[in-house]
Amino acid sequence: MSFCKVFYFCFLLISGNNAVATFHSVLQYLPSTAVSTTLQLQELRYQMRLMSISAYIIPGTDAHLSEYLAPRDARVAFMTGFTGSAGTAVVTQSKAALWTDSRYWVQAERQMDCNWELEKDVSVSSLAEWLISEVPSGGEIGFDPFLFSLSESQFSAPPVSLVFVDANKIMCLFAERSWQTKVEHIRNQMRDNPYEPTALLLSALDETAWLFNMRGNDIPYNPFFYSYTLLTMDEIWVFLHMNRLTDELKAYLNSSCTGPLCVQLKNYEDVLGHLKTYVAQPGVKVWIGTEYTNYALYEIITPQDKLMTSSYSPVLTTKAVKDDKEQQILRDAHVRDAVAVIQLLMWLEQAVPKGTETELSAAEYVNKCRSQQKDSRGPSFETISASGPNAALAHYSPTEETNRKLTVDEMYLVDSGGQYLDGTTDITRTVHWGTPTAMQKEAFTRVLMGNIELSRTIFPSGTRGVNMEMLGRRALWQVGLNYGHGTGHGVGNYFGVHEWPVGFQSNNVPFRPGMFTSIEPGYYKDNDFGIRIEDIVVIVPVNTKYGHNYLTFETVSLVPYDRKLIDTSLLSSEQLEWLNNYYKTIRELVGAELDKQKLKEEKDWMLKHTEPFSSASVCSSSLTVVALAIALLHNLV
Amino acid sequence: MSFCKVFYFCFLLISGNNAVATFHSVLQYLPSTAVSTTLQLQELRYQMRLMSISAYIIPGTDAHLSEYLAPRDARVAFMTGFTGSAGTAVVTQSKAALWTDSRYWVQAERQMDCNWELEKDVSVSSLAEWLISEVPSGGEIGFDPFLFSLSESQFSAPPVSLVFVDANKIMCLFAERSWQTKVEHIRNQMRDNPYEPTALLLSALDETAWLFNMRGNDIPYNPFFYSYTLLTMDEIWVFLHMNRLTDELKAYLNSSCTGPLCVQLKNYEDVLGHLKTYVAQPGVKVWIGTEYTNYALYEIITPQDKLMTSSYSPVLTTKAVKDDKEQQILRDAHVRDAVAVIQLLMWLEQAVPKGTETELSAAEYVNKCRSQQKDSRGPSFETISASGPNAALAHYSPTEETNRKLTVDEMYLVDSGGQYLDGTTDITRTVHWGTPTAMQKEAFTRVLMGNIELSRTIFPSGTRGVNMEMLGRRALWQVGLNYGHGTGHGVGNYFGVHEWPVGFQSNNVPFRPGMFTSIEPGYYKDNDFGIRIEDIVVIVPVNTKYGHNYLTFETVSLVPYDRKLIDTSLLSSEQLEWLNNYYKTIRELVGAELDKQKLKEEKDWMLKHTEPFSSASVCSSSLTVVALAIALLHNLV
Repeated sequence: MSFCKVFYFCFLLISGNNAVATFHSVLQYLPSTAVSTTLQLQELRYQMRLMSISAYIIPGTDAHLSEYLAPRDARVAFMTGFTGSAGTAVVTQSKAALWTDSRYWVQAERQMDCNWELEKDVSVSSLAEWLISEVPSGGEIGFDPFLFSLSESQFSAPPVSLVFVDANKIMCLFAERSWQTKVEHIRNQMRDNPYEPTALLLSALDETAWLFNMRGNDIPYNPFFYSYTLLTMDEIWVFLHMNRLTDELKAYLNSSCTGPLCVQLKNYEDVLGHLKTYVAQPGVKVWIGTEYTNYALYEIITPQDKLMTSSYSPVLTTKAVKDDKEQQILRDAHVRDAVAVIQLLMWLEQAVPKGTETELSAAEYVNKCRSQQKDSRGPSFETISASGPNAALAHYSPTEETNRKLTVDEMYLVDSGGQYLDGTTDITRTVHWGTPTAMQKEAFTRVLMGNIELSRTIFPSGTRGVNMEMLGRRALWQVGLNYGHGTGHGVGNYFGVHEWPVGFQSNNVPFRPGMFTSIEPGYYKDNDFGIRIEDIVVIVPVNTKYGHNYLTFETVSLVPYDRKLIDTSLLSSEQLEWLNNYYKTIRELVGAELDKQKLKEEKDWMLKHTEPFSSASVCSSSLTVVALAIALLHNLV
Repeated sequence: MSFCKVFYFCFLLISGNNAVATFHSVLQYLPSTAVSTTLQLQELRYQMRLMSISAYIIPGTDAHLSEYLAPRDARVAFMTGFTGSAGTAVVTQSKAALWTDSRYWVQAERQMDCNWELEKDVSVSSLAEWLISEVPSGGEIGFDPFLFSLSESQFSAPPVSLVFVDANKIMCLFAERSWQTKVEHIRNQMRDNPYEPTALLLSALDETAWLFNMRGNDIPYNPFFYSYTLLTMDEIWVFLHMNRLTDELKAYLNSSCTGPLCVQLKNYEDVLGHLKTYVAQPGVKVWIGTEYTNYALYEIITPQDKLMTSSYSPVLTTKAVKDDKEQQILRDAHVRDAVAVIQLLMWLEQAVPKGTETELSAAEYVNKCRSQQKDSRGPSFETISASGPNAALAHYSPTEETNRKLTVDEMYLVDSGGQYLDGTTDITRTVHWGTPTAMQKEAFTRVLMGNIELSRTIFPSGTRGVNMEMLGRRALWQVGLNYGHGTGHGVGNYFGVHEWPVGFQSNNVPFRPGMFTSIEPGYYKDNDFGIRIEDIVVIVPVNTKYGHNYLTFETVSLVPYDRKLIDTSLLSSEQLEWLNNYYKTIRELVGAELDKQKLKEEKDWMLKHTEPFSSASVCSSSLTVVALAIALLHNLV
């Protein structure tokens, strides 16, 4: 979602060479958006021949294995034209292929020209099998070891140079836990580990940012700065671009000394050399998280007995569990964020029937609303504002070419979020300003049922999201509907909007109290409409009749769903009860905030949209209704 | 469950040395059952000192990574006294520890003496951390490479010799698909594989048994014989004990020639040498399934480019999907099996109040009932017949020492299964002949709700069991209850009762139509009672309103649940509808079989126990009741 600028950047580079791809029927709805990649491929293949490489792999990540990239790291977009946030490209002398998941298939077909084939099976074995069948026996496969955790490396210079984009100074953020406390806490985990690591290498950008309560803006929408940290029991080395540091920050980091709580600052580029020197010492053992350490650094840590691995570093697993204060400020950010989204929905309800608004103007409006909230630091990703068939692309963001007018005849999906100094938000609502079809209403209700069933479920502490996420799909499966993306991802206190390793994916960590995740089932009908309902929830303890250590989710996104799209006859009594309780919470928490901000009209709108649902379809209450009927009857006769 | 004889075998070896363990309060309920292991440990530690080994690992498996073992492979039972079907033991000079999962904790504490500590975290990291803390730096860890898929090997002679148990001749089974058809089918999968394997090595005992439609009886309850197969495009080598083969079987295998469809028979012990010779040839590549190939064979396949791995061999994944004929005969076996279980339950209902029956006599009775059914080949595992607190041990089997009398005051759990020439069965029912407590009734109903919710769910083809199995737990979780074992395992046409890789575990394959699995949620209250409800289901296609390729489960175990234990007010209308439909199927299918077998009394019993449940607790019907009340009221006034 954050690639739009990159897209234009590539576009400029190759203007004059736009081939119009006509191989997909979806294109009839949109201006032609395919990018010609003939020149890039020519150049890459020339370089490959010089180096005797049969195939070259281009992953959609950076040296920190980041999910969101700075423009300079947008290699896949440059080579393929495809700007989605997940994709791997491979080029041989005769073929070029892109692997991406189902969220992006339509987008990839719209953006790539006929040089490229789209591979839809994103498993490692699919890519490996493709390579085996395309690369001649004995052929070499090239890749950049800084972008990989793979176990073979033959080639190390990236063949594509992109323009370096300068960034502003790094700022420091005052959080509840001081960085010294956090460092001590992580060192305790190193000390207690039976493998006895002597150092911890931090590669993911949010690891150094979290540990030192610092934020930057090297990457769009993400308050990160390029950095590595090497933490031992006695020393702390942080590798970053020194010109980004103010004197105040150097003092904050206690950087003028050496010792266990002095941060020794090094140039970003020195990490490889420094790590090499450290590893050469006898008796050392470096702990890395394999999910976020690149192959080039991993390769240096040799022999094997100097290496210790876990999927995630202790910084990421510690950061995943928010303490009481962090939980409270993240909840607070969501109350303010709800005000902005309610302002958008109220305004659209009035403006759309006049026929003056578009996907782009709606996206601008919600960004403006958020910017007026306290401690706002801009959107947390590029707003997905999608009407009618555009919403069928799960990660569509409007551009001038694709921009659709909003009307009472189409469903509209808006997925947006804000960065605030206290927290990151991410919320999706789908609405209809006219008369939805029966199928739209059924699909919306079943998506909502998925959201509610997952949100209200009770589970033992330590249950993994991946083992529960089918509850978000089950009401859809019942009638043969489904969605092709994940069901949720972590968020945190002013970090990336996808804060792993919390969530519902198979490589996510078990749920513990104090973690935050999104819950976001959806349904997408190609060329017609898209539905997604996304809320952030926090994992909280719950009392049960017999057991201990059971948890449930509490929803902290506080914006009502479109009543027009809910068929209450499909909901169980438990689901309806959950919904009415949720609306009660919105009235309490957002009501107070709207009062505080003196937003009278918004408050009226919110109250109207959070009226309790009558439970005509529900058993126990139906009985009450019938009992009343009996009483009436009795009097009448 | 199949270790009882092994237990006695060990017991004899060490008689006169029984130490009475008094460290666990559960023992007050039972005769002392701890086994003294002092002599075995002394001898092992002596051997370890001779070989300078600091720790020795004893896994609970055989060279084929089997789950059920022949007595000669019961190394863990011999060393520890613990006879459960899952466990790994480690011995150092000063310590001895056993790792087993929660199903077996109580049993392990009952069976092991004070030489042993019980480790409850069965993750590999727990064992590794224990070794790291116990083994001095530079110390060597010994294990038998034939019993491992681990990546380090320092030691290869098993220090414990056990008596070889002779077995009968191998038989051949006439199945719908000829072995020649199956071999061609597997060769096609080898040919189509992009890694281009030249040979397939089959190590799991059911792989060779399935491929050639042969069965033996080397392992109790499992119709297997010791064997390996090496299959290439041109040749078939089968390694087995030649003295087990009849001339008829040699002819059946076409063993008097060489060629693509001639089976070349070799001695079981020759596999290592033959594989070594094969691998030494240029251009070969051997495909193995890593889950069932032992380390000793794996180690031979070198260099790496001669090896191809997948979790399961194509034989296991092909075998997992039953064709129409195989499905039908497996269903038929379950109809006959239901007759035997109904006979047991009817008899117990009459006999238990007289005070004459015990866990052992009930187990004998159901075995006898099964043996009278067509094509019976004995039980598929040792019957779990457990009353009151004994049922809280999920895998308890009665012995003379632990045998409990059955009474109207205790709940009773019976988990049993049969081998038939057409199929393997496995079913658990829990009953109460007196008045259950409110908690017992609630727990039973919630276990049943789990069984029903999972059974009736609709899911896309290819969904994994592990991502759905929480539906079997959810009604329990709701009130803080849970169970500590898996939710189900595959079964097949006269094979082991646990037929992997089908089931609900994380390493099981995605569900496809034609697979069979058990669904078996439970609840166990220590020292009080145990509940489990287990049925076999087949995965079948289902029509949905909007989608294609959706599946659901159809239950093929056909025995009613104890009505007395079901609180219908907890069930949803969908659950009650499912239950009534299931009972209708029992009446149709088992009714016809009971008629055929002229079992009049059993039929009456079955009809009484499958009366449709009135839906007084259900919404729509409640309304009818109330409407009737209104009508009555109207007339009265």
